Amino acid sequence: MRRQFRNDYCELAHPRILEALSKYALEQNEAYGLDYHSKNASKYIKEVFGAQDSDVYFLAGGTQTNLVMISYCLRHYEGVISADTGHINVHESAAIEGHGYKIITIPNTNGKITAEEIRDKVISFHDDIHMVKPRMVYISNSTEIGTIYTEKELRDIYKVCKELDLFFFIDGARLGSALTSKENDLKPELLGSLCDAFYIGGTKNGLLFGEALVINNPLLKKDFRYHIKNSGAMLAKGYAVGIEFEEAFKDGLYLSLAKHTNDVADILKDGFKDLGIKMLPSPTNQIFAIFDKEKANLFIKEFGCELWEENDNETTIRFVVSFLTTKEDVSSLIDFIKKNK
Amino acid sequence: MRRQFRNDYCELAHPRILEALSKYALEQNEAYGLDYHSKNASKYIKEVFGAQDSDVYFLAGGTQTNLVMISYCLRHYEGVISADTGHINVHESAAIEGHGYKIITIPNTNGKITAEEIRDKVISFHDDIHMVKPRMVYISNSTEIGTIYTEKELRDIYKVCKELDLFFFIDGARLGSALTSKENDLKPELLGSLCDAFYIGGTKNGLLFGEALVINNPLLKKDFRYHIKNSGAMLAKGYAVGIEFEEAFKDGLYLSLAKHTNDVADILKDGFKDLGIKMLPSPTNQIFAIFDKEKANLFIKEFGCELWEENDNETTIRFVVSFLTTKEDVSSLIDFIKKNK
Amino acid sequence: MRRQFRNDYCELAHPRILEALSKYALEQNEAYGLDYHSKNASKYIKEVFGAQDSDVYFLAGGTQTNLVMISYCLRHYEGVISADTGHINVHESAAIEGHGYKIITIPNTNGKITAEEIRDKVISFHDDIHMVKPRMVYISNSTEIGTIYTEKELRDIYKVCKELDLFFFIDGARLGSALTSKENDLKPELLGSLCDAFYIGGTKNGLLFGEALVINNPLLKKDFRYHIKNSGAMLAKGYAVGIEFEEAFKDGLYLSLAKHTNDVADILKDGFKDLGIKMLPSPTNQIFAIFDKEKANLFIKEFGCELWEENDNETTIRFVVSFLTTKEDVSSLIDFIKKNK
Amino acid sequence: MRRQFRNDYCELAHPRILEALSKYALEQNEAYGLDYHSKNASKYIKEVFGAQDSDVYFLAGGTQTNLVMISYCLRHYEGVISADTGHINVHESAAIEGHGYKIITIPNTNGKITAEEIRDKVISFHDDIHMVKPRMVYISNSTEIGTIYTEKELRDIYKVCKELDLFFFIDGARLGSALTSKENDLKPELLGSLCDAFYIGGTKNGLLFGEALVINNPLLKKDFRYHIKNSGAMLAKGYAVGIEFEEAFKDGLYLSLAKHTNDVADILKDGFKDLGIKMLPSPTNQIFAIFDKEKANLFIKEFGCELWEENDNETTIRFVVSFLTTKEDVSSLIDFIKKNK
Repeated sequence: MRRQFRNDYCELAHPRILEALSKYALEQNEAYGLDYHSKNASKYIKEVFGAQDSDVYFLAGGTQTNLVMISYCLRHYEGVISADTGHINVHESAAIEGHGYKIITIPNTNGKITAEEIRDKVISFHDDIHMVKPRMVYISNSTEIGTIYTEKELRDIYKVCKELDLFFFIDGARLGSALTSKENDLKPELLGSLCDAFYIGGTKNGLLFGEALVINNPLLKKDFRYHIKNSGAMLAKGYAVGIEFEEAFKDGLYLSLAKHTNDVADILKDGFKDLGIKMLPSPTNQIFAIFDKEKANLFIKEFGCELWEENDNETTIRFVVSFLTTKEDVSSLIDFIKKNK
Repeated sequence: MRRQFRNDYCELAHPRILEALSKYALEQNEAYGLDYHSKNASKYIKEVFGAQDSDVYFLAGGTQTNLVMISYCLRHYEGVISADTGHINVHESAAIEGHGYKIITIPNTNGKITAEEIRDKVISFHDDIHMVKPRMVYISNSTEIGTIYTEKELRDIYKVCKELDLFFFIDGARLGSALTSKENDLKPELLGSLCDAFYIGGTKNGLLFGEALVINNPLLKKDFRYHIKNSGAMLAKGYAVGIEFEEAFKDGLYLSLAKHTNDVADILKDGFKDLGIKMLPSPTNQIFAIFDKEKANLFIKEFGCELWEENDNETTIRFVVSFLTTKEDVSSLIDFIKKNK
Repeated sequence: MRRQFRNDYCELAHPRILEALSKYALEQNEAYGLDYHSKNASKYIKEVFGAQDSDVYFLAGGTQTNLVMISYCLRHYEGVISADTGHINVHESAAIEGHGYKIITIPNTNGKITAEEIRDKVISFHDDIHMVKPRMVYISNSTEIGTIYTEKELRDIYKVCKELDLFFFIDGARLGSALTSKENDLKPELLGSLCDAFYIGGTKNGLLFGEALVINNPLLKKDFRYHIKNSGAMLAKGYAVGIEFEEAFKDGLYLSLAKHTNDVADILKDGFKDLGIKMLPSPTNQIFAIFDKEKANLFIKEFGCELWEENDNETTIRFVVSFLTTKEDVSSLIDFIKKNK
Repeated sequence: MRRQFRNDYCELAHPRILEALSKYALEQNEAYGLDYHSKNASKYIKEVFGAQDSDVYFLAGGTQTNLVMISYCLRHYEGVISADTGHINVHESAAIEGHGYKIITIPNTNGKITAEEIRDKVISFHDDIHMVKPRMVYISNSTEIGTIYTEKELRDIYKVCKELDLFFFIDGARLGSALTSKENDLKPELLGSLCDAFYIGGTKNGLLFGEALVINNPLLKKDFRYHIKNSGAMLAKGYAVGIEFEEAFKDGLYLSLAKHTNDVADILKDGFKDLGIKMLPSPTNQIFAIFDKEKANLFIKEFGCELWEENDNETTIRFVVSFLTTKEDVSSLIDFIKKNK
């Protein structure tokens, strides 16, 4: 079978991650995330993201991490603001609402929302107790459609959040792809001071499994381990994820894997451009390309692409580059498309 | 103070309701809705609404009734479809989501949604387990903005619900106003067979408090009293609401009170029309009239109207006629507006 | 049929309550508890209970009130301590757990728990994050079995609560019966400073419906109206309950109704004593009397008593005196029992 | 540091598990559990447990698996019966209640409950809608204190469950230790027909992470993947756990690892017996030994044992043997204890 471009979590893990796990296979460790690997990993993460006073927790998956964080921040009469395309609003089987929290949507522009839109939305509720009370803002970076936020955009959102008493949480399932995009101007070391909490996705960036949740705001720290356990999200062998993130952050592996996906994705985008294929704007490892229906179906079949959107004339499909995708895989893809265009 | 037109629940109750309560003040009754008044009231209701095999429960308020019904119908990965303007989506402080159920919105047309829109919405989820599973449709009749559904519209919605395995629930907080509107073509006796469940609003139609929930679908009956109690909605003195509905339905009081509000509202609408005042379409007891901002504020102040919407040029305010509003009250209102126009 | 002794909520309401409602039948009031009757009632209640800085909310029923208060106080990893016989643990169809809150039980002694038992229980959890975190204490006064707490017992519990960072909440579904018992030494005006919150039961003491929740602790006040609405517990015609409590507290009606039930209950207890009938200790309006099985069944049949407990030799049944029960009703009951003993 | 006897999840994974993961490191797989490894693993599991028509799901941890299964089975007014010592009741930070489900406890005998006790408990609720409705039975095998159920005991429980309309769920966090105990008489191939659902613990038996949930009852299958996703428990790289269980079950590794722990534990128990040390009865890999306080503290310090119970005279501490513990580790432990006794 051809190399698939379905997503960035269909390959198990980068070899270094598995080697690290093997290295510590027989070692006895503290359970429940109290081990020294998790402490080391936290230390590295705090350094990279300028989050010296933050708390770091290691969880199993992205939806779980969003749920754990949002359910901690909100009371049941409060809501979280998100782009209508936000992962929590569309692709989590109502996990957030299913646990008792309303999502307040703002129509996205290229997958993003702005500080001004957030302010307008909050004001529109004018403290009416018969309406939900906005209390949190959720974004992802990179977004569902591969776009990224600039430093200024994040700064503006965080400012309006502080002004309006909202928590600001960044879903970083693909944080690496955002931070290593050629168009990115956000320094990683600013994240510790640009939001109340964020998470660093492992699953979509070469780790076997696991996400690192970083909590900057001291108001969001009390009893957090109780909350994780109560959410069914406490890993007995937390040190497994600790070992992975220790390896991923001790010398830059995490960001270099992400950079690789962006570099390879850029080659793919250039190839598409040369072939005159229209694409949605995305400076990261997800490429949304537009074909007629028949061609789209062919490429979906051959490369496992996801159907993104379709109307009468155009079908948009998604190609995702992973930490294992090579330039050769891309050449082979381009060749196929050229032949079958 | 002038007669207010703020809403239809700012007066306690119709004298006949209070007299009925006084009549039975010293009688000993079974608690928890098992009394003979509740049984009588159920019998009358089943007759009026063609719901001979349905179950009837008496609850305290509208949001509670919506919550009790929706939380019974859904699992936490399932969602309820509603107009974006639906009461559950806008005016219940996220009670539905707060208890674990996602609302799937469809943009309204005059407060309503159609069978076709429901079908399109459900199909758009194409059984993707990463998305919420649509499982229920919620409408209100009359709607948030006073419009009503025709028999055919309801029939079409119920048909699509059965086809797509959705429960169909009608919020009848203002059911009386819908059924007695001059534009209405829906016979009350059809409601027992046109939906899976509906409720008959008492609070907004002259009762002291209480709503009657009517469950037509046998699949929605099992252990319902457990569910009510678990929801904190079981009234110890359920017979109090039983007495009210017995009185309201034994000889047509309920619908005649609603008809009164519509008749008086029609007079008000005619008055507005004569004065050249623009109104949104509403064939029931809520009247949405458009003024410039300054005038709107004056009328809000004088008559307790609710501000509905505003933009740079126009301010829409709501006048509501209640079971106690008289033609004289309307004349006095029209006079004031004429003088201050 | 004979006067039943089944419970204290099988008669609608004291005539004065219904008269007050009738008096204001046609008056226009603010909805959602913002009316002047509710304000008056709050003022009277604060005076009687020494709760000048407290907030008062009017809700529809007891289980609902317990649920609204407990769900406000706790996060989902926290638990509420209760006697094993506590109403929330036994008779609310799991409403508390059903909304996400664990009840931590302590074996009762005569329906009560002590400060020392609370301390021991909390210590037994030794801050283990794998266990629930105790955060609240719930008692009722009078208790499920009619006993009452002394001032000192309450003081001790509140002290240990403050020491251990627990909220202290008193369910007063039958608060009147406790405060007017001959054995009571608790002055009503101390309740504002002896707990974080309590509620005053209307349903079981002659009101048509409704309970008054009094919140003393400022930490429990923020956004409380949002929470009530989100819980489906906000009454549109909140002024109805306001009018009832205004009437009940403006000149002492509430406590005098409760005193009446205790006085009549005392006569009943004396009668039982004279007949050599064994009773559980209860200084309030619930009397738990022990018979052989056959006699118990007869009295259950004749007087609607609830079966409380049974073993091979003894059957305990409950007689409840209500605000409408008279000395004559008691004489007639005693006569019957004497004849059929 | 000495080999610790703290628990059976302080070592990462058996080498064969890590080798299997490494073997498939670069392979592209379907996400969300739809891959061929998960299918293979399911096939092996169904064969071993006589569960040909069952569904198998792979989840991340034990508390999560209990929560996913129980929350699927129950409505919020229903409860799950458990021994008072049950893991869900004591060691899951109220995860079950925190998500809305009451646990109904039965006092344990050696960690176990019986069919007769379950029947008596259910009957005690006599269908009173004011009480929780029992709807499910939870046990673990082996239990919290290392005891095991006989085939007959399970058969009796399942029979009473079917009679009383209860779901029967077995927590198998340490299922391997139960099935390979010298005292066990339960054939693995019976589990598919002796309960409605059970899970096979990976975390505590040599896997890196992951549990396999096996659902036998067809009534518990509908939309289960929606439910997993909504619970935040759907693993994107589900094939990681699939690979682990494929390896663990393709040729008997799972049960042989468990047998190893029991064999080594038996040696330890013999050693304790020779030294005259009192133990609680446990035929599996958890050993509860009784010392005076001072000695207990010493052994806790040296071997990381968990303090289980203490009273004035005796302190019970837990020694756990893992898949990596050797006979030499045990000899060294015995030597130390002999010297310090």
